Amino acid sequence: MKAKIEQVGVLLDALPYILKYKDEIFVIKYGGSAQTSPVLKEKFARDIILMYLVGIKPVIVHGGGNAIGEMLDRLQIGSHFVDGLRVTDAQVMEVVEMVLSGSINKEITALLNLHGAKAIGVSGKDAGMIHAEPVDFEKYGFVGKITAIDESVIRNLIAERFIPVIAPIGSAGSGDHPGFNINADTAAGYIAASLGARKIIFMTDTPGVKRADGAFAHTLNEQEIETLRKAGVIAGGMIPKVEACLHAVKGGVKKAHIIDGRIEHALLLEIFTSEGVGTVIKP
Amino acid sequence: MKAKIEQVGVLLDALPYILKYKDEIFVIKYGGSAQTSPVLKEKFARDIILMYLVGIKPVIVHGGGNAIGEMLDRLQIGSHFVDGLRVTDAQVMEVVEMVLSGSINKEITALLNLHGAKAIGVSGKDAGMIHAEPVDFEKYGFVGKITAIDESVIRNLIAERFIPVIAPIGSAGSGDHPGFNINADTAAGYIAASLGARKIIFMTDTPGVKRADGAFAHTLNEQEIETLRKAGVIAGGMIPKVEACLHAVKGGVKKAHIIDGRIEHALLLEIFTSEGVGTVIKP
Amino acid sequence: MKAKIEQVGVLLDALPYILKYKDEIFVIKYGGSAQTSPVLKEKFARDIILMYLVGIKPVIVHGGGNAIGEMLDRLQIGSHFVDGLRVTDAQVMEVVEMVLSGSINKEITALLNLHGAKAIGVSGKDAGMIHAEPVDFEKYGFVGKITAIDESVIRNLIAERFIPVIAPIGSAGSGDHPGFNINADTAAGYIAASLGARKIIFMTDTPGVKRADGAFAHTLNEQEIETLRKAGVIAGGMIPKVEACLHAVKGGVKKAHIIDGRIEHALLLEIFTSEGVGTVIKP
Amino acid sequence: MKAKIEQVGVLLDALPYILKYKDEIFVIKYGGSAQTSPVLKEKFARDIILMYLVGIKPVIVHGGGNAIGEMLDRLQIGSHFVDGLRVTDAQVMEVVEMVLSGSINKEITALLNLHGAKAIGVSGKDAGMIHAEPVDFEKYGFVGKITAIDESVIRNLIAERFIPVIAPIGSAGSGDHPGFNINADTAAGYIAASLGARKIIFMTDTPGVKRADGAFAHTLNEQEIETLRKAGVIAGGMIPKVEACLHAVKGGVKKAHIIDGRIEHALLLEIFTSEGVGTVIKP
Amino acid sequence: MKAKIEQVGVLLDALPYILKYKDEIFVIKYGGSAQTSPVLKEKFARDIILMYLVGIKPVIVHGGGNAIGEMLDRLQIGSHFVDGLRVTDAQVMEVVEMVLSGSINKEITALLNLHGAKAIGVSGKDAGMIHAEPVDFEKYGFVGKITAIDESVIRNLIAERFIPVIAPIGSAGSGDHPGFNINADTAAGYIAASLGARKIIFMTDTPGVKRADGAFAHTLNEQEIETLRKAGVIAGGMIPKVEACLHAVKGGVKKAHIIDGRIEHALLLEIFTSEGVGTVIKP
Amino acid sequence: MKAKIEQVGVLLDALPYILKYKDEIFVIKYGGSAQTSPVLKEKFARDIILMYLVGIKPVIVHGGGNAIGEMLDRLQIGSHFVDGLRVTDAQVMEVVEMVLSGSINKEITALLNLHGAKAIGVSGKDAGMIHAEPVDFEKYGFVGKITAIDESVIRNLIAERFIPVIAPIGSAGSGDHPGFNINADTAAGYIAASLGARKIIFMTDTPGVKRADGAFAHTLNEQEIETLRKAGVIAGGMIPKVEACLHAVKGGVKKAHIIDGRIEHALLLEIFTSEGVGTVIKP
Repeated sequence: MKAKIEQVGVLLDALPYILKYKDEIFVIKYGGSAQTSPVLKEKFARDIILMYLVGIKPVIVHGGGNAIGEMLDRLQIGSHFVDGLRVTDAQVMEVVEMVLSGSINKEITALLNLHGAKAIGVSGKDAGMIHAEPVDFEKYGFVGKITAIDESVIRNLIAERFIPVIAPIGSAGSGDHPGFNINADTAAGYIAASLGARKIIFMTDTPGVKRADGAFAHTLNEQEIETLRKAGVIAGGMIPKVEACLHAVKGGVKKAHIIDGRIEHALLLEIFTSEGVGTVIKP
Repeated sequence: MKAKIEQVGVLLDALPYILKYKDEIFVIKYGGSAQTSPVLKEKFARDIILMYLVGIKPVIVHGGGNAIGEMLDRLQIGSHFVDGLRVTDAQVMEVVEMVLSGSINKEITALLNLHGAKAIGVSGKDAGMIHAEPVDFEKYGFVGKITAIDESVIRNLIAERFIPVIAPIGSAGSGDHPGFNINADTAAGYIAASLGARKIIFMTDTPGVKRADGAFAHTLNEQEIETLRKAGVIAGGMIPKVEACLHAVKGGVKKAHIIDGRIEHALLLEIFTSEGVGTVIKP
Repeated sequence: MKAKIEQVGVLLDALPYILKYKDEIFVIKYGGSAQTSPVLKEKFARDIILMYLVGIKPVIVHGGGNAIGEMLDRLQIGSHFVDGLRVTDAQVMEVVEMVLSGSINKEITALLNLHGAKAIGVSGKDAGMIHAEPVDFEKYGFVGKITAIDESVIRNLIAERFIPVIAPIGSAGSGDHPGFNINADTAAGYIAASLGARKIIFMTDTPGVKRADGAFAHTLNEQEIETLRKAGVIAGGMIPKVEACLHAVKGGVKKAHIIDGRIEHALLLEIFTSEGVGTVIKP
Repeated sequence: MKAKIEQVGVLLDALPYILKYKDEIFVIKYGGSAQTSPVLKEKFARDIILMYLVGIKPVIVHGGGNAIGEMLDRLQIGSHFVDGLRVTDAQVMEVVEMVLSGSINKEITALLNLHGAKAIGVSGKDAGMIHAEPVDFEKYGFVGKITAIDESVIRNLIAERFIPVIAPIGSAGSGDHPGFNINADTAAGYIAASLGARKIIFMTDTPGVKRADGAFAHTLNEQEIETLRKAGVIAGGMIPKVEACLHAVKGGVKKAHIIDGRIEHALLLEIFTSEGVGTVIKP
Repeated sequence: MKAKIEQVGVLLDALPYILKYKDEIFVIKYGGSAQTSPVLKEKFARDIILMYLVGIKPVIVHGGGNAIGEMLDRLQIGSHFVDGLRVTDAQVMEVVEMVLSGSINKEITALLNLHGAKAIGVSGKDAGMIHAEPVDFEKYGFVGKITAIDESVIRNLIAERFIPVIAPIGSAGSGDHPGFNINADTAAGYIAASLGARKIIFMTDTPGVKRADGAFAHTLNEQEIETLRKAGVIAGGMIPKVEACLHAVKGGVKKAHIIDGRIEHALLLEIFTSEGVGTVIKP
Repeated sequence: MKAKIEQVGVLLDALPYILKYKDEIFVIKYGGSAQTSPVLKEKFARDIILMYLVGIKPVIVHGGGNAIGEMLDRLQIGSHFVDGLRVTDAQVMEVVEMVLSGSINKEITALLNLHGAKAIGVSGKDAGMIHAEPVDFEKYGFVGKITAIDESVIRNLIAERFIPVIAPIGSAGSGDHPGFNINADTAAGYIAASLGARKIIFMTDTPGVKRADGAFAHTLNEQEIETLRKAGVIAGGMIPKVEACLHAVKGGVKKAHIIDGRIEHALLLEIFTSEGVGTVIKP
């Protein structure tokens, strides 16, 4: 009985957070180990359901991780990177969409539904949600940058109490076009800003953003990020993440989080306890 | 960090219960030590808020406990009991209403509001909610029995997302009438049945209902109750409680609980853990 | 038959007023003889119902009159006045709330319900409606001044077609606090302003506000009130009433009335006939 | 002041009736002197507005009285009666519609609007409201009997808070057809039944229905009507009225009234006082 | 089969227009041959239904054409014109209203209903829709100019999915007044502006507006109209039409069209094909 | 101009069909050449948009055609057929889902959105829409049969005015399960029945169902189908189609159509012209 009483004590510690976040939209960029480890996937799903049941409106954005590269290899389609971007010709784009929308998106959707959610998997091409144009067609092919978000689609889904799970494919808006391969971090940032989300949370395989001294930063602002970036401390895959964070907080999102998705229940820890698990970027 | 992870594990253990009880009405008969101990009051309030935030619709019914007797003493109004019922003349009735609606009801309402609820305190006379007639005017005066519940009033309040806190005063429906003093347990049972509540929970100062052998019963059905009552095992103040339980479950309520309100967070233990804390009465 | 025809003629004389006031909120500060005389109470109730049925949205605010003093005497709790305010310690406050919310509020609510209304009695502490802080705790104890009104609670009740009957108790908003004793006239003025009421009407035991020459004023504006106040013509209990009137009309209420509640059907006379029965204060 | 107090007393005498009839549909067959006398027209309009403002939903059905005959004369179009029905060829029908929909309907609508209503004049041909077929084309031409009422049209108008004013023209439902000339009493009866009206009231130039002994009947039932009809006591224009009353009450209308429209405010007298002014026909 | 395939090809050519005009209000001034020729009437009705079914909200305004003059002749009521306006005394006004509201309005309404619409015929006097005052009572009598449009009436009807058919009679707003005879073109212009219609279309018996060289103008702007008017090229009945067009486009209507109603399906040609059939007036 | 007039004549011929099908759900099983030919795809898209714009609610269900086989070949995953069903192990199932949900579903969705629709691509696993169990796990692996449809998901999407495009994947409802490969024809039949669709239309590469004499049948009923099936005339891929038709019409769908999708605009021909283009199966 004593254990049980402690248990409900824990439930009650979450009360102030539940009160604070009721009816708020949280955009979650799902990725890294949390997306591949069977144990972490399960915990992620339960975290999302709990958020949903206590009144938070989660919106999931995911990328493709290694699955796209693997499928290209299996299909013996060569592809290469320029400036860290996968050069995406029509054949590659076809695989990108198939893997993102057909495998990964559906896997996440199914995972959430199995735990009791009413999740629906959509692509940025569905109902014209993400409009894009080429970054530089000569250099990267169908790698796109976002020109507009029609967030009404997402709001329609939330209004019907769905949890939207979004694959970052962009629509060209006209013609017979394979669509655009969009960076998932960037897509998450734009979607959060367009929805006026309360929080955006990036699930990564790092404990957060490092400072120049190698220590992890608990909070960062725009200027600090600028400095770290110029110093090359923020580099590689962390760049689109911090940029997406800045885009989101400038667009009205209250806080952007880069958290360590390798920690079990990282999402709940961040949201429902006093213990932050990563770096917070504020306006 | 480890402690925090265990903490969110606990949150997640509540998931199946949250899923099950979402949007269901729970009628809570509040009373006993849970209503008088400062520590237990605080915990009760937080339990109710948590229930409310995860989607349960709580409806609180309370009695007057000792406060009525104390106020009668302070006002030097004599009163006596016949068959366990306080004989209620007009002067006593005035005090009953004043104490129930003006002190206790408002105290509970304020308690809940302080913890973040949107509670509203009403009496069974408000908007004609509880209709009553005398049990036996000659013998008991304005002690009433319920003739009808207009549950639409409660539904109106729930629709506006209020937590109704109800004082068990009955309306005579006509004339210049002081109203009726209704047993709070009975009122709770009628209200639960009229609302088609999922659960009714009586908070008491006992571990539940005793069997003939002195052990506490985990579950009871109508026949067992009948037997225990004839044997005098169920007696005194437990009688209106079990009767209210039976009235509720016959009226469509799925389960009636008589729990030990002296245990901290007894409500959450009952609702969100596998560990029951009292006696369950089923149809 | 002739009498009957004259009768319907009278009904029709009310038509222009009904057209004008349809769907408008009227805040009524109930008090004085209208609250104590059995004959006047009955007429008040019928007046309110008629207003309600022809489309006006009445909101009743009441004070405690002599009942609080009487109960304090009966309970042998001493209390005294400083600057016309009852010094309110915790023990007094408990009685204030009990009498206001438990006796008077419920009596008015029952009175209206008996005549066919769907009235609901609430206190300013319900759902955090009236927020207050001490006027001067050293001097007056729990005598409060209003810091904010959450009028959404009242609107929720009106939306469900209830007639709200409000006891002027203020909430401290946090901690274990007995609440605040608020002047009912002041509370009515704040509530009317927060709701953008069409009219606020104070029912008093005077024919209205006197001018310097002793005659009763039919209309007054802010400047005239200032002059009369400085001259000591407006004094005593009339001060909070005219201040509440000014607060209301500055806050958007079109007209504030101080009427003679000793006249039968004073409310209907004021609202539905060309014959005013008191003093009107305009912006 | 005394006169004014009596005045509000009268207002209050109407209270029980207002409570009883709130949100109920009353179908009024308007006709006779009430439709032609300038004084009575004015009073009729004010009666209807008052009914409307206290929550009754009036629906007006009117006939053409002498205006059709006059216009036929002015246009030198001969017409004659067979079995009390005006034989209606296409030329006559054109005049019937023009006078009913263009003159009388608009006159009534304007009259109500001038007194503050939001009345809208429609014909039974609008939106396919009244479907009809010939009574006997060989004998009477375009004299129609009702085959169906599409009451949804009327409900749509009531939902937008209009007072519908209906000219009794029937639609043939197909082809290039002038429509049908429908008896206004009959149309009123069908409309009341289709709407499940609370009351139907026929305004006539008689004190009600006579009994065999020449006295006016206060109430009649179906059997009594049958007897009086066979005895020839109910005859002429009273026949379609009592038939329409019977059709209405059999179709669910609670009471049908044949009242003396020559009495000023006959409608209000009937509805809001204890003094009936004609014959009531009950199921 | 080939013919059928061509047929659906045609359906599809309308797609871009359907997409563009969905949920937009189109005000149609109906008149000329389209209102008198049996063949054209039929085609007009089907055009309106099609517009309605693909999501356009048509509002029809009609005039009286020759029917008023004919009826005045048949009734031997003399009338004459001053400055192109029919001098309208009370006797003439009565006929104007009767013919407009009773014959023409109902004929159009019936025509539309027979083809499957839910049309409702109203006059500008219904529910106080068109408020007017005399142009110059001395000279023209009850010829009115519009002072205000209460477009909420039309919106109420559209909300219930009616097609409003409006007779251009104006209300004086008070007293025993026959109403005003309003120019139908002018009424259409005011109604379109008050509703923020997408288009206003005048159906005439000309191919459009002539330029100085006698050729028909495809588009005109305000300045060109001014020039043509001063030059007397725009004259007679075309003046109120172009003025109504200018009033509408200045009031927010996107395009005003003066089309040749003698061409079969002129409305659909204008709306659903690339081929314009008259003159367009733009802001 | 003449051509244009003929053109609008064609538009009008569709009127009766538009009236008849307004607000009705049509389930379209998309497949065959209509899904592969660039020309036919384009025409299919425009057909669907037109249906949508005139008020029909289309729901698209698609299969995978040859794309699944091709992808299995490219990935060098062997697979074979037993009883005409592709034996589906976990590896094959992964490809089935990826191709259905990621390539084909998104291609159709994008196609519709490019033509102006608000289409959303979902799988039967989204929000638990299609529940399934193995047909015979030993023999066929993850080939599933439908146990239940949660049509509320589809209704939610239609309520937000989306066109749902559904991939026939079934959910096992629990555990870590790859889902089920469902026959698309069967899925369409179940979905149509669950929605109470007006029509279900199968787009095939045949002119319809053949009779025993080799002629194509315009209509068939259950008994005829039974006979043809026993005679082996209905065989192969036509079997699930006729079974789905029977399931749909028994479940309340009014008509099931098997049409020749190779004919341009076959859908519109079937829906909007008098010329049927295949076989109709009626209850």
